[in-house]
Amino acid sequence: MKLLEERIKRDGVVKSEGVLKVDSFLNHQIDVNLIDEMGAEFARLFADAPVNKILTIEASGIGIACLVARHFGNAPVVFAKKAQSINLDGEMYSTKIQSFTHGRIFDVIVSKKFLSPEDHVLIIDDFLANGCALNGLIELVEESGATVEGIGIAVEKGFQHGGDKLREEGYHLESLAILESMDPNTGEVVFRENA
Amino acid sequence: MKLLEERIKRDGVVKSEGVLKVDSFLNHQIDVNLIDEMGAEFARLFADAPVNKILTIEASGIGIACLVARHFGNAPVVFAKKAQSINLDGEMYSTKIQSFTHGRIFDVIVSKKFLSPEDHVLIIDDFLANGCALNGLIELVEESGATVEGIGIAVEKGFQHGGDKLREEGYHLESLAILESMDPNTGEVVFRENA
Repeated sequence: MKLLEERIKRDGVVKSEGVLKVDSFLNHQIDVNLIDEMGAEFARLFADAPVNKILTIEASGIGIACLVARHFGNAPVVFAKKAQSINLDGEMYSTKIQSFTHGRIFDVIVSKKFLSPEDHVLIIDDFLANGCALNGLIELVEESGATVEGIGIAVEKGFQHGGDKLREEGYHLESLAILESMDPNTGEVVFRENA
Repeated sequence: MKLLEERIKRDGVVKSEGVLKVDSFLNHQIDVNLIDEMGAEFARLFADAPVNKILTIEASGIGIACLVARHFGNAPVVFAKKAQSINLDGEMYSTKIQSFTHGRIFDVIVSKKFLSPEDHVLIIDDFLANGCALNGLIELVEESGATVEGIGIAVEKGFQHGGDKLREEGYHLESLAILESMDPNTGEVVFRENA
């Protein structure tokens, strides 16, 4: 998506090998106009999928998911919660996810009330790197018997190949910008063609 | 706001003295239609305020803030982050907040890039109880030199009086539902009149 790629080139900051900061428009300050355009693009890309629920993970996925949901008939958004092994009461689907940013492993939960076999789920998140977070979300959906209709990502780090694996497994994954490489010295980012 | 009060009566669950669960529509699963209506109501209530930025705190405020922002000319949303004393690099406004739910004290940060004296801020959050979280957010805004134009809350626990104190201090605080009392035995909730 040209609009997002241009915004990354303009306002993204390559902090180090593998770390792109997009906190001025995506995950600390949120450009509501931009996300709204991204929602319209996801609606185009997943036009054939009978989506009735949006799933994301706290915290930075939530704003994107809520604005994207408007383009899917105001489907309800469910956000998975990060719980550090506290009071999992059996009423939850849960899995473990290793955080790319923090290295830590944490439990991720979704109440059983909010995912069921009738649900057709679009998973939304801001970043896709090695795919740990996404694999966790997919696990939660499949545990519930619901269907993963698609996965919509803002920024995929193509050089970490989590996305390629998910595509090989047959998931309909759409990333609005796929980074092929980035250089912390020059700040240059290179995008995969036709993302 | 009748719509929210009725939804709380229908789907809210009084878990114990002082704890109301609204996770089916507000802070785990998010009813995008409902929040959109709430955004329209906040726009009416704060029509005179020159709001150019929405501030909230992760995680459950983010979705509400992003949907509310649409009713304020798609103002950008900034969400304060909860950081457990990690890498505060001096480029952050920070304060400490005691969590009502968890009892824990944590640092809350906002990058200095995203709040400045030119900003006219509407603070949005899902819950107001004793006011600790809100006082922290107000502190961050005032530290930056920006103006607090108003505070918009979904559910205020009137019996904990954090809201009354903020009104006495002169803040323009609007809560869409104010709980006067709730009974964990009968599940009954009573709202303050004219909220």
